[in-house]
Amino acid sequence: MSSSLLCLVFLFFTIVAEATYSPGGFHHLSSLRQNKKASKSKPKLPFETRYFPQNLDHFSFTPESYKVFYQKYLINNRFWRKGGPIFVYTGNEGDIDWFATNTGFMSDIAPKFRALLVFIEHRFYGESMPFGKKLHKSPETLGYLSSQQALADYAILIRSLKQNLSSEASPVVVFGGSYGGMLAAWFRLKYPHITIGALASSAPILHFDNIVPLTSFYDAISQDFKDASVNCFNVIKRSWEELDAISTKKNGLPELSKKFRTCKGLHSQYSTRDWLMGAFVYTAMVNYATAANFMAPLPGYPVEEMCKIVDKFPRGSSNLDCAFAAASLYYNYSGSEKCFKIEQQTDDHGLDGWQWQACTEMVMPMSCSNQSMFPPYDNDYEAFKENCMSRYGVKPRPHWITTEFGGMKIETVLKRFGSNIIFSNGMQDPWSRGGVLKNISSSIVALVTKKGAHHADLRAATKDDPEWLKEQRRQEIAIIEKWISDYYRDLKED
Amino acid sequence: MSSSLLCLVFLFFTIVAEATYSPGGFHHLSSLRQNKKASKSKPKLPFETRYFPQNLDHFSFTPESYKVFYQKYLINNRFWRKGGPIFVYTGNEGDIDWFATNTGFMSDIAPKFRALLVFIEHRFYGESMPFGKKLHKSPETLGYLSSQQALADYAILIRSLKQNLSSEASPVVVFGGSYGGMLAAWFRLKYPHITIGALASSAPILHFDNIVPLTSFYDAISQDFKDASVNCFNVIKRSWEELDAISTKKNGLPELSKKFRTCKGLHSQYSTRDWLMGAFVYTAMVNYATAANFMAPLPGYPVEEMCKIVDKFPRGSSNLDCAFAAASLYYNYSGSEKCFKIEQQTDDHGLDGWQWQACTEMVMPMSCSNQSMFPPYDNDYEAFKENCMSRYGVKPRPHWITTEFGGMKIETVLKRFGSNIIFSNGMQDPWSRGGVLKNISSSIVALVTKKGAHHADLRAATKDDPEWLKEQRRQEIAIIEKWISDYYRDLKED
Repeated sequence: MSSSLLCLVFLFFTIVAEATYSPGGFHHLSSLRQNKKASKSKPKLPFETRYFPQNLDHFSFTPESYKVFYQKYLINNRFWRKGGPIFVYTGNEGDIDWFATNTGFMSDIAPKFRALLVFIEHRFYGESMPFGKKLHKSPETLGYLSSQQALADYAILIRSLKQNLSSEASPVVVFGGSYGGMLAAWFRLKYPHITIGALASSAPILHFDNIVPLTSFYDAISQDFKDASVNCFNVIKRSWEELDAISTKKNGLPELSKKFRTCKGLHSQYSTRDWLMGAFVYTAMVNYATAANFMAPLPGYPVEEMCKIVDKFPRGSSNLDCAFAAASLYYNYSGSEKCFKIEQQTDDHGLDGWQWQACTEMVMPMSCSNQSMFPPYDNDYEAFKENCMSRYGVKPRPHWITTEFGGMKIETVLKRFGSNIIFSNGMQDPWSRGGVLKNISSSIVALVTKKGAHHADLRAATKDDPEWLKEQRRQEIAIIEKWISDYYRDLKED
Repeated sequence: MSSSLLCLVFLFFTIVAEATYSPGGFHHLSSLRQNKKASKSKPKLPFETRYFPQNLDHFSFTPESYKVFYQKYLINNRFWRKGGPIFVYTGNEGDIDWFATNTGFMSDIAPKFRALLVFIEHRFYGESMPFGKKLHKSPETLGYLSSQQALADYAILIRSLKQNLSSEASPVVVFGGSYGGMLAAWFRLKYPHITIGALASSAPILHFDNIVPLTSFYDAISQDFKDASVNCFNVIKRSWEELDAISTKKNGLPELSKKFRTCKGLHSQYSTRDWLMGAFVYTAMVNYATAANFMAPLPGYPVEEMCKIVDKFPRGSSNLDCAFAAASLYYNYSGSEKCFKIEQQTDDHGLDGWQWQACTEMVMPMSCSNQSMFPPYDNDYEAFKENCMSRYGVKPRPHWITTEFGGMKIETVLKRFGSNIIFSNGMQDPWSRGGVLKNISSSIVALVTKKGAHHADLRAATKDDPEWLKEQRRQEIAIIEKWISDYYRDLKED
């Protein structure tokens, strides 16, 4: 296997597939959350933790399907009055506490709606492990990790919860960001009898089966950086060549280790590339208007901050030094890191299962065009498939998501079918390109902001929020109010 | 166990559960299609038979889920022009040839629409056996027989077929009767991106989870007989007492064997009861306006014919003799049966899998009220569950269908969600009581006729069809025409 192919496969896997998209969007394990103080600090949440018994398999009736596991969920009834709305977060690929912490919008609006808050953890993430904490990487066990099973879990849990609360007539609104947003939208489409509407924030439901161009994700990031500073874009774009030159030198690895201040000597020439790319990708995703700590603690508009760092370098500086300095903002904003653990993966939020999902149903192919600021590469499905086979012994089903949930010609299909979905997107979020960006009907609507990063609207309000973000949230609240009042009116007319 | 409890359990199983509902409606193996000439005669269908490779399990990714089986489907492209509509029958619990034979409506209208005709067989029926012709009655294999898997099969097959025909933009309309009608309606609800609309004929999607009264099925049959003749209703209602009296006599079985002209001596006192009930149940279901041969060859309006037989008996005749003579119309209309094989089950249309489905997801509880013409009995869920456990080692999931597909408050839910479904019902069909009988929205409509038996509208037109049936079909055609023209208009506007 040639080194260039290796490189493609590697990139493909760490950025595009193995990794693709997590925490509300994307994950890239080798670079995820180096700052332990940030990731490990778990604020006490105002929720009660509960566990619900679920069947392993809802769609089959084999003996194995009846195996029971306990699904974690968080509940807060402080604002609720019986019969009132239930707001459910359809958990995505990580522990549910983390998503609850980063979805303050639901808690912000609960008092106004007198809503019950419920955050349900996705099967095979966090504590909701059907085969115990130790996730065996075998298809016999992981085989039951799928989005349809997760949606069925949510349907069963919600129905049971309402029954236990003797509040069967309560309207349920689902919320979700990123993969959780996809689940929220799909849940409304597949289970309209369980939820009256969905707020699907930054949900790239069209990122499958070549519906959107494969280059869109990296092109969007590149555009973010170009918008911040053309020089910054150019410097980063040129840095890969420098990196390659060192990487392929004899004794290149020790030199790279020194340059990147790694805690241990590097073993692979590709890990620094991944590490840099991860910084730019994640920073674009979390390019929030105010300081935040989702993937890592960062200042407001961190892409702009990164580019300021680059732009301050004197003319003629090493592009790679600039890129490294920029990436350090993401990995070491607090300044407390003495060295970087570039090759030591951490997975503090239990995101590991996503790699399985990416190898089975969540096949979201990507490529890098020459116009992007990243090293160009083509999508290589065969290599991806082989890697999934060798890693998990599983064959991807790349057309399954669009068969099960649709996506092609979505405007035509949903123009005359379905209702009550908000697709919200901020165009600075690279995932926005795979989202629904135009109104489809009077009640399947797109709320798009020019700025705005990955599910920014779902975050808790801060005093420094810009007007466009406040306005987006106001619109969301008004739409949800209408769903609920329509529902209660229908109920009375019954 | 007391004999009365045994009786309940037995009835429950042969009529209500084991058996419940098949061939477009219901099955009751001990009494099904005695007339071999009728059931074995397979007219040559104008279809090409094909087989499509399907994964065993679409919703999981275990190694077993990748096992491939071949799904049978029938295709007729005589009237089709590329880009034109595709009419798909979503096969139900039996071999697909049988449904194709009894769904002449689709062939009748294909030339007008220049439509491609496709009849897809349901997994685990007919030839579409994932584990070979011999259906092992174990949950390890039968576990993959479920309605959701079947719907996913249809989605995948249709998508692949359109691709192979290079006719991806063809609108697909799905048709189905009885369980096939439920599948058609659910398919439109779950896969609106694959089908533009569904004609769901006699689809009792509300016959779950106590949505409709448990007595509705047998009450409807009783009403059919009462409408034909009050005397007939009363005679049948009184016959069970006579039957009981003989059954419980010493040497009752030989006497019953003689009275019922059985080919072999009877072993159980309950089989004649089942046999009689089966005749009344099925005849009510197939109470078509013209002579037909769906379950058995019968004259037009066979319930009326049965009652004429009863009414001709002189006053003071044995009620049981009347009931037997009436039942003989169903089992021996041609007059060729020398004796009746009351305890020898036959399963000419491969309906066996339904008993598994009734024990897992298709839990449609029923009971007989004192007002019906049948022996009264209460629903005994515990006994049903135990029977499923001992028979298949499987535990029913009685709330799963309403969780997965809805049903409760269906008007409220679908008033603001979904489109393009016709629910057609004839009120003489006992299954009609579990159907959607009122318009829900401008495009989710109910076409209800006062007369009309089980999916009568799907049968081929005959010169003797009554005006109300012709009118029902005209309305169906007009609605389907609108779906298709809307679709092509949307396509142009794209």
